[in-house]
This record gives sequence, C-alpha cells and structure tokens, in this order.
Amino acid sequence: MSFNTFGKLFRFTTWGESHGPAIGCVVDGCPPNIKIKENDIQLELNKRKPGQSKFTTQRKEDDKVEILSGVFDGKSTGTPISMIIYNKDMRSRDYETIKNKFRPGHADFTYYKKYGIRDYKGGGRQSARETASRVAAGAIAKKVLENKIGKKYQVKGAVTQLGILGCDVKKWDDKYISKNPFFSPDKSIVKLWEKYLLSIRKAGSSCGAIIEIRAKGIPVGLGAPIYSKLDMDLAAAMMSINAVKGVNIGSGMSSAQLTGEQNSDEISQSGKNTKFKSNNAGGILGGISSGQEIIISFAVKPTSSILLSRKTIDKFGKNTSISVKGRHDPCVGIRAVPIGEAMMHCVLLDHYLMHAAQCKS
Amino acid sequence: MSFNTFGKLFRFTTWGESHGPAIGCVVDGCPPNIKIKENDIQLELNKRKPGQSKFTTQRKEDDKVEILSGVFDGKSTGTPISMIIYNKDMRSRDYETIKNKFRPGHADFTYYKKYGIRDYKGGGRQSARETASRVAAGAIAKKVLENKIGKKYQVKGAVTQLGILGCDVKKWDDKYISKNPFFSPDKSIVKLWEKYLLSIRKAGSSCGAIIEIRAKGIPVGLGAPIYSKLDMDLAAAMMSINAVKGVNIGSGMSSAQLTGEQNSDEISQSGKNTKFKSNNAGGILGGISSGQEIIISFAVKPTSSILLSRKTIDKFGKNTSISVKGRHDPCVGIRAVPIGEAMMHCVLLDHYLMHAAQCKS
Amino acid sequence: MSFNTFGKLFRFTTWGESHGPAIGCVVDGCPPNIKIKENDIQLELNKRKPGQSKFTTQRKEDDKVEILSGVFDGKSTGTPISMIIYNKDMRSRDYETIKNKFRPGHADFTYYKKYGIRDYKGGGRQSARETASRVAAGAIAKKVLENKIGKKYQVKGAVTQLGILGCDVKKWDDKYISKNPFFSPDKSIVKLWEKYLLSIRKAGSSCGAIIEIRAKGIPVGLGAPIYSKLDMDLAAAMMSINAVKGVNIGSGMSSAQLTGEQNSDEISQSGKNTKFKSNNAGGILGGISSGQEIIISFAVKPTSSILLSRKTIDKFGKNTSISVKGRHDPCVGIRAVPIGEAMMHCVLLDHYLMHAAQCKS
Amino acid sequence: MSFNTFGKLFRFTTWGESHGPAIGCVVDGCPPNIKIKENDIQLELNKRKPGQSKFTTQRKEDDKVEILSGVFDGKSTGTPISMIIYNKDMRSRDYETIKNKFRPGHADFTYYKKYGIRDYKGGGRQSARETASRVAAGAIAKKVLENKIGKKYQVKGAVTQLGILGCDVKKWDDKYISKNPFFSPDKSIVKLWEKYLLSIRKAGSSCGAIIEIRAKGIPVGLGAPIYSKLDMDLAAAMMSINAVKGVNIGSGMSSAQLTGEQNSDEISQSGKNTKFKSNNAGGILGGISSGQEIIISFAVKPTSSILLSRKTIDKFGKNTSISVKGRHDPCVGIRAVPIGEAMMHCVLLDHYLMHAAQCKS
Repeated sequence: MSFNTFGKLFRFTTWGESHGPAIGCVVDGCPPNIKIKENDIQLELNKRKPGQSKFTTQRKEDDKVEILSGVFDGKSTGTPISMIIYNKDMRSRDYETIKNKFRPGHADFTYYKKYGIRDYKGGGRQSARETASRVAAGAIAKKVLENKIGKKYQVKGAVTQLGILGCDVKKWDDKYISKNPFFSPDKSIVKLWEKYLLSIRKAGSSCGAIIEIRAKGIPVGLGAPIYSKLDMDLAAAMMSINAVKGVNIGSGMSSAQLTGEQNSDEISQSGKNTKFKSNNAGGILGGISSGQEIIISFAVKPTSSILLSRKTIDKFGKNTSISVKGRHDPCVGIRAVPIGEAMMHCVLLDHYLMHAAQCKS
Repeated sequence: MSFNTFGKLFRFTTWGESHGPAIGCVVDGCPPNIKIKENDIQLELNKRKPGQSKFTTQRKEDDKVEILSGVFDGKSTGTPISMIIYNKDMRSRDYETIKNKFRPGHADFTYYKKYGIRDYKGGGRQSARETASRVAAGAIAKKVLENKIGKKYQVKGAVTQLGILGCDVKKWDDKYISKNPFFSPDKSIVKLWEKYLLSIRKAGSSCGAIIEIRAKGIPVGLGAPIYSKLDMDLAAAMMSINAVKGVNIGSGMSSAQLTGEQNSDEISQSGKNTKFKSNNAGGILGGISSGQEIIISFAVKPTSSILLSRKTIDKFGKNTSISVKGRHDPCVGIRAVPIGEAMMHCVLLDHYLMHAAQCKS
Repeated sequence: MSFNTFGKLFRFTTWGESHGPAIGCVVDGCPPNIKIKENDIQLELNKRKPGQSKFTTQRKEDDKVEILSGVFDGKSTGTPISMIIYNKDMRSRDYETIKNKFRPGHADFTYYKKYGIRDYKGGGRQSARETASRVAAGAIAKKVLENKIGKKYQVKGAVTQLGILGCDVKKWDDKYISKNPFFSPDKSIVKLWEKYLLSIRKAGSSCGAIIEIRAKGIPVGLGAPIYSKLDMDLAAAMMSINAVKGVNIGSGMSSAQLTGEQNSDEISQSGKNTKFKSNNAGGILGGISSGQEIIISFAVKPTSSILLSRKTIDKFGKNTSISVKGRHDPCVGIRAVPIGEAMMHCVLLDHYLMHAAQCKS
Repeated sequence: MSFNTFGKLFRFTTWGESHGPAIGCVVDGCPPNIKIKENDIQLELNKRKPGQSKFTTQRKEDDKVEILSGVFDGKSTGTPISMIIYNKDMRSRDYETIKNKFRPGHADFTYYKKYGIRDYKGGGRQSARETASRVAAGAIAKKVLENKIGKKYQVKGAVTQLGILGCDVKKWDDKYISKNPFFSPDKSIVKLWEKYLLSIRKAGSSCGAIIEIRAKGIPVGLGAPIYSKLDMDLAAAMMSINAVKGVNIGSGMSSAQLTGEQNSDEISQSGKNTKFKSNNAGGILGGISSGQEIIISFAVKPTSSILLSRKTIDKFGKNTSISVKGRHDPCVGIRAVPIGEAMMHCVLLDHYLMHAAQCKS
C-alpha cells in the first residue's frame, strides 16, 4: 500500500498542499555514510524552480529546502531523512472562481467526488507543487548512486518535443540542455520553439511536450521479474507525474511497427565488453537492465488551466464556464524534466538495493 | 515488495516455468461469498490459448485450470484461492541451441547475468506462459466486479494495430472482436491483416502490435493520489506484460501535440448525468476515475524468436549467431488481448476495494 | 517494507532524532471528512509528556504539535497529514561521556555496528522521543474510530505492575488512571508504588513495568488470517515500542498453564447478544476480533541509563565503564501507557479499514 | 498488505484448507544458486508430522512435499519456489456436529461472523495444517542461511513448559531434543511430562505449553528501526502461529521485575570478541541483533477441541453444547516446535537480506 509513498527499499513519502504552510518528504532506506548536504538538494530543486523564464509559470517558488533528520555530521545515518520546504508567494488571489467550479482537465471533479471535500487553494494536493518533494528525494538517490557506482553514473533528461515540434534527438548534446530555457538537447530547434511557445502563450492556450530521460553507467542485473520489472517500475514512476499520459521504453509505441529482425538488438562481444548493435529495448530486457543506456520517454499533456473559456459544471451540478486568470504556464511539460530525472534516480537506487539483497548478499 | 506478486488489496502471486511441471497463482484478498466456478476461469484461459489459428504459436497449451483452495460450496470464502495449470506438450526439442546462447531481444542475457543461473527450457520463468496465471487471476477479479458493480461493468480488449497497419477505431465493434483470429474490433481491416501476417510469417520474421483495453461502468472515485494513481497502476500492469514497450492512457503520447483547449474534456450536466465532450483523459483525472470509459493502449514489440539468423554471443562470451527453429509465433501481440483485459480487471478491483476502505467504510 | 512506516491501510511514517531540530510523522490513509483539531492531538501528547512528576524524567518536552497538511477547514481531506514537533530543552550536557561508549542495554552498540555511524546526542533515533510521533498518529486514529464506531469505542491503558509489585486488576477503575502519576487503575497500590519507586530512584537504579491496554466497542470481524491476524499486528505494534520485551494477548503466557476446559471461553446467546463466560482469548479468536473486550499487556524492561556504574566497551574496542549522569527516569514503563493506547488505536483502525474493504465493499 | 504472505524481501504465501485437495506455499525472494532438494524440506516436515506418538493427534499426515518451480538442476534460480502437499487421510467423519456449531476457543465464530461463510471441514483455513507450509518455507530459508553464514548458524527449538510443569532450561541439551516425543531439552523432566500428559488425555482435556527457540551464529546488525525491528518481526511471526497467546524476547515479561543493573547485560572486549555478561536482551538491542544468541519463547494455549462438553451457540443463534469426538491432540504446543524454528529461519533470512541491501550494497 502506498498512497503517498514511492519505492520498496528506497522509499519516499511526500505530503503537503500547494497553499498549505509547507510541503515535504520523508526518505526511508537511504544507506548510511553517504555525504549529503542541503545544497546538493537545493541545486536539483533550483532546476525545477518556476519563474525562471517567460516560458514557465511566474509563481516565485523559492523552494528553500531544510533537512530535519537522518543526516549527522554531514553524513546519512541510515535513519529517515525528513525534508521540508515552506510555501511562499501564495497570492491571495480570487479563489472564488475555482472554489466551486471544476476546471476541465484537472482533478477538481474527481477529488471532490471521491472525497466529498477538497482543498481548492492552488489545487491543494493535486498541484504539481508536490513534485518538488520528489526532486528532493531524487537528489538523495543520486548522491547514493554516485557513491556506489561512481562517476560513470549519469542521468540526463531533456524535452524532445514541444507541442507539434519535435527536436532531432540525434543532435542530443548533454551540455546544451541546461543552457536553454526549454531543456532542449538540440540547439537547432530552440529558436523555433521560442516562437511557437510565445504564440501559444499569446493565444491564452497551452501545449504538451515529450520528455526523454537517459541513464548511463547502469550495471547489468537491475530489475526483477515479474512484478518488479525495472521498466514496469519506471513506467509507473513517470505515469505518477502530474499530467503524464504516455510512457515509452526504448522504441516504445513505435516498436509495434518494427519487424522482429529490426527490433532485436544484436549482441556481440569484444574482449570484456558486451555490445548491442542498437537499443530498441531501451536498455531493459525481460524487466532487467542489460548494461546499455536506459532510455525512457513520456508525454505531458498541455496545461489544463488556460485563459480561454471552457464549459464545465460546478459542485452543485450546474452548467457554467471557466477561464483561468492570472499566472499561466503555457507548457508544464518543460518543468517535468528534473522530475523525470528524480524519479529515474529513485527507481534505479531502489533496484540497485534489491539486486544487492537478492543476488549479492 | 512484490517480485512475483501484483496488487495491494486484491493480490495475486504467480509461479512456474514454461517447461516445469506446472504453473499457477495464488489470489489473496478476494471478497467472500462470490460465486466462482472453475469454468469461469477456463473460459478466460481459452481466449489466450495458443494454437487456435495459424496466426499464433502452434504450441498446444491445454491450460486446464484447477482450483485448489479458497472456494467452498461454489463460493469464495475470503481465504486464498490457489489455482494450478499442469504443463503439457513440452516438446523435447533441441534445447542445445538455446542452452548456452542468448537470443537477442529475449531476457536470456539479463537473467543469466543477474542470477548466474537460468532455466533455459522454453524460456523458463521469462516465458509468456506466466501470463496464463494472470488470466486466471483476472477471471476472478471480473467475477467480483460483476457482482459488485453489476451488468454495466464491462472490459473489452482488441488489437488496433498489427505491425504497420492500424485499424479504424471508430469502427470498433465489441461483438466482432471474438469472431476473428486477430481480436480486431474493425471488420474492414481483417483481410489486409491476414495477408500481411502471412507474408511476415513466410519471411520467417515477426511484427509488433498495439492493443487497446476499454472498461465501462466504472464508478467515479477509483484511484488514489499520489503513488497509487489508477493510471500509474494500469501503466505498471500493462508494462509488466512480456514484450510491452509503451503505454498510453487516453490520448497518450499524442496528447503532447494537442493544445490546452483541444485536450481538456469539457464537462456538462444533464439531470443526474455528468457528461464529458471528449475523452482525451482516458477516463482518469488526477489519477482518479471520472466515470468515463477507461481507455488504455499498449505496444507489444515483435516476437524476438524468429527464423532469421541474428548475431549474438554465448554464455562463454563467444560471438555466434542464432535462428530459432520450430514453433514460431509471428505476432505475440495478438495473444496479449486477454492478458491486458485480465490486468485491467485486477487493477480495477484493487482500487475498488481501496476506495471502499478509505471513502466508504 | 516498512523501516519507519507502520500500518497497511492506515499508515504512519515517523522521522527525527532526539536532539535534531524536530521530530514528526506523516499519516497516510486517513479517511476524509473527519473533524481534526491540533488540540485533539495535543491532549494525547500531554499524557505522554515527561517532567510531570518526580517519577519520570525531568526533561521538559513541550511537544507542541503542528499540523502541516491534510486538514482543510477543520476536516481531513484524505491526503497525508503531516505533523511536526520542534525539539526544545536539548541541554548541552556532556555528550563526551556517551559519544564513544556503548551504554549496556541501549542500542548504542548495535546501531554503531550496523550503520558504522550513529547520532549519539540523546540517543538520536533510538530515543523514546520517537514515540511522541506515534501518539500523534494514534490521536488521529482515535478520532476516526470515534467517528465510525461512536461513543462505545474506548481504549484505556494502565500500569498493572511496577517492578516487583503488581496491582489488583480486579480493582481496575478507568477514571482513576489519569488521577495518579503511575497510570495505576488500582487506587490501593499507589502508596506502595510511590514508596518503592522513590527507593529505586534514590538507589540510582530503575525498574521495569507491565502495561495493559483494553479496547471496548470493537465490532466482530476485525483481523485477517493468516499473516494479518489482529493479535499478530498488535503484538508487533507493542513490541516495536522501545524497551518492550514481552507481549500477552488475554491470558497470554499464563495460558500455557490452563487446561482446555479452563481456557475455552464458553459462548451463550441472549437475545441479540452473544456472550462469553470468560475472556482468556483477550477478545481475539483465530486472529479475528470476537466482539469481546480486547486485552493486551506488555512488559517494559527497566531503564538502561542508570546512575550506577556498569562495565562496557567503547567504539575502539577498549574495556571501560559508564554511569549515566543527569536527568534520570527510574521507570520508563510509566510513560509507555499513552504509547500503547496510540498503537492500539492505529492497529484497530487499520483493521477496521481492511475489513471494510474485503467484507463490506 | 499481507493477508496470507509473510516477509518482506524473503516472502512466502501460503494457501489451502485442512480438508481441501491440497495445501502449499510460494516462496519468493530466495537468492539464486542455493542447493535445494525436496528431501531437505521433507526432513523438516517430518518433524512436524502428527501421529508420531500417542502424545499428539493421530491424524496421519504424510505431508509429502513436491517442488513445482524455482529450482533448476538442483539449485534455486531466483524465481518463485512453489511447493505443494496433497491432503490425505481426510476421514469422512461426522462434520454435522461442527457444521453449524461454533467450538469455543476456535475461530469458528469469528470466521463465520467476518465472512458470512466458512469451510467447516477440519477447520478449513483456520486449521493448524497451514503451518506445514511454513515449515516448508522455513526449510528453504534455513538452506540459504547455512549457505551464507556457514556451519555456525543453528536454530534449535524446544518445549520448556508443558501445562503446569516447566523444565530446567539450564539442563538444555540440543541433542536430546529430537530424542523424546516432547521436544524437551531436559531429560530429567520427561518421565513426569509423560505421566502428566497421559492423565490430561485420559480426562479428555488438554494443556498448553511454552516453546523456546534459540538461534546461534547470527551476525551483529540484523534488524532495522523502528517498524522493522528484529524482535518486532519475531514477535509477529510467533504470534501468527495458531493458538499462540504470548511472546517473550530474552527475559520477556519477567524483565518487568528486574532492576536496571540486573537487566543491563554488561559488555566486555577480549581481543576481537565482544562478550556480554548475561543475555536478558535475548540477543536484540534496539531491534537489532547484537551477535549474542537470539532467544524467543512463546505460549501455546491448550487445544480447544476437547472431549469434555462445553457450552456454545450455533450459527442460528441458539444455545447448545459441544464435545469434540474422535482424534484428539492433548497438547498442540508440542508440534509448534518445528513451526517456531521455521518462522525463526524466515525472519532471520528476511533481515539478513534487508541488512545486505541497506548496509552492505
């Protein structure tokens, strides 16, 4: 059971509402003696921070994280690491608009029908603000894996499609990703995306995106049949992110269109190195890592809160319409990049520990 | 933790290898006083049975299920329901070919590297034979939900794309699905698929497929934030099926290309009925069922065992090649339809029970 | 997996060290629409508060709890309830004494050997301070069960033995328990206990205690075979409390000395009421509540930190001795009463929800 | 969630009713490459077999175990190990007596009230017959730990009290235990027990027992705070055994009567060896193994099915009486010895794997 807990051996529990006093998470199962500083976590959180460019929401989330437990003399002790981020810049904007109306595409309707009560302020628990907690947990998982695996361990995420415009993934440049406001891995597409997103924004509309996360340096053997497959857990992890509607491992949905000989990644041995001719499998065979790069991508639907008017109902069952005023994020997908990276770190560490338990003890 | 167990409140644990004495599963958490007959389960298993047409593997799996516990006087007692299927028709074919070689696209390599030992006979635990156990568990979940929700509860799966050829989902006809060997919901595509698959088969190759599962009659409120979202659990369920590489909820990956106003399913009220203008969300908002039809689709990669020769290595690290002789299944995706249905039943029941616990107790 | 999480459907995760900035817990799975005030929790915490009499530790723990999430307009929303208690009165006493030495009877040795690092300040995570978080979680469980079951639901704990002096449980008086510093249910023993404990204290020694927890108004049917038996979960709950070494359900260890006819609680029916002649079973048969009062007792070993000198070793493997200076609690068992009550509330609610899911959905 | 599953990383799921076609269990999480033979399991099962002396039930349970999966070429593969035991000697005795009547002390009443249906034949799922599955799982855990830890690993259980007659545990002789029908570790008490139990039997009555399980060769560091303490999990394990009503770790309930200086086991170092002057802690400090012998004891209540007449009600709410005819077991506690040993093996392996994951990966 895990309403608000993710993971098996490396687990984190998140809590908090968008406009409550604070949000946070408790990380359990972190191995001891890992060097952890608040600043390690802060740096990851900063990547996710909104208000950094005109292409994302203007909410100023300072997201200053504090570690409350589990770290002693700069090192993890093996006990739970509790982190808290106090909420700021909660504008006292007119909640009356959304208090009783259900925004189409949002969880307003389903939360209200399920629980009979909902915290409507800023979306409450539904808000993507919860993902800051994931980024904090992911920062810890990253530190652990860097300690266990070493420098070759690397996770990189990027936006590969913005609305109708895909980038050229063959031009993927790790270093470029952090140098543009779109987390694009391909320099050649950025001017076009900029133009496109400004037009979307101006129209009071929004667009979706595809995010790709790549992990290098992963040892063979992570993952476990049948219901703890690495790709199963990664798919779940990504699908749990707000607004995600589709997940691909390697060739993903496109693999339906391949023939057997196109799809099977041929294997060869060169000295001590096993090589694969291609990577349709996305680095996972039978739910277990093959030692290739792990590649997962996911689609984020367009922001549901838009300036355009949409038909809906209120909680009394009356027909009405709604258009969301104020701060507006034309593409929530962009900020999903550090969240996808964080989930990748967490799933990989979880399986790293499970593999150690069953096969290396 | 759940290497071989799926589910939270309604759980099943599967066991068994392709060419061992038997396979089976233990279903735990089934509510009491539900009428269950072996034949209810047998009928679902028969849908999955191979050797039914020239388009699937010729292995004759009789898959005769026996209930060993948990049912008394024709009704569930609330205790675990153990089911067993003895393996038959395990041809003593030449295992020497695959004993030491890793078939590209299969889990041979990763299982061996992970565990240092593997049951190579018929793929052992990696084999899709395990999915018969899921179908058996799904048959029980179906009985429970039919009892709880009533006649309006219905789950239907179909193949919507075979290799490069998609069907027209607007022509979806529930009744036609069981009347053709492809589980196609669209009569107009079947001739073409037949021709296409025969050519694939003749070439000793294979192709992938996309399967879509639809669930009707689902009450509002199933699913739970944040890490037990209904779509998260469904994505995990489908991704756990052998050879699945991508999963879509509603518009899925395509939602990246929509604008906010296209994507948000407008809501209206007509008397007691809440209506949605469209269903891009696939019946799930914020991880919770909205009362709309639940729609999930997933891609199955092409069968990895093909007659064409592929380069690979053996377990001693020597370069070699392999071509799989004998029974050959040109599209494993076809048989994934009843498996996808089974997983849908199981996830829905699991969430039905969780919802009852938290919100209706 | 549950290093720091307790429960299945109603779960709480605790975090924090004795002398860190704060401790706290996250409650997940709380049903929605339950009225919850910070003061409800504070009142329970106050029962556990040390420094209330000369018979318990003089540490002043103000234990002011704050709710950070999950409660909206005074009601639970079904989302996680995060609670925090900032640590105060952490005297800067001489930690050098215990920094490198392992106190016999404490977890100093095992924590250090397990993790290779330990927060020695005030015992860090080993400290009974963690139990304040349980009391907070229990206060919420209590509110839920009072809402679901009504006024007849009541849990009462008391000390029934203090060191070598047992009270007379036949004189159990619910109302008297809160009126004496020992949580004694029997007024006649209190003078004696007072004298006894003062002598123990004066000697710089300590003594153990037995605590009994009784729950009334429990419906028939809570608990589940085989590995979620109600008594199994209660035993685990109580054994997880610091310093607890033994647990009895009903007649407990004494039942070994009974004959079959003495032990079997005869049943009779009077109108709508089922009655049991005795309650050796402690209200639980086959792991399921029978509708009788649930009775569990547990032994708390004597405080390990005493003024008397004890032989031990330090972390460098050198023989040495230790005697703990400063604030000294002659019987930690006394303060275990509200903790045992809290765990009882949590286990009962957990099973209440599970029963609803499986048998009442 | 774990109605019928025990354990976290090493887990087993049991199924089956006393008089159904079979019982069995599925072991998940067994490390690969461990030599396992059916006979290893059979030998443990034989210890539990009833009908071996006049002091236990005369039911002839042949308990012939078969391994159906997870073992290949004599070694575990890391996949689930399914074991089955077909039921035999299910005498068609007069079930009419117990079909509608609730036997006092049994779970007849609570099962019926909880589920509204029960398999009354031989007690169905309530029957202690389920424990054969635990013994099978324990046999596997034992093999794994012997492989990991080596020869010094040893678990020994014995009956230390039979009804009102306790043995002298100072005379504990490992080798004598298997040489007497009572699993007594003390030769001097056996004649007395024989006489006592024959008198109990002749009177148509029954008696309880106390069982003690000792584990040697356990490394320091197994167990995890706070809700996966080793003693918490052991207490749960033992309390889950049919008819167990009390559990002690080390000095257990008696520790309430000790003073701090009596109770704290002083520590000293001699070269590389850490020694403890006493073992009141039962080998566990703060929930973590200290390297000392682990000692747990538990009380089994007297057999509830006795020849003497007891007052009860039937399922229609009518007052009646019952006396159980036929095969009669005057002390079920005796057969709990191999079950306690099995649970000890399982809990220790589970924590061995968890420790490896968190602290040795």
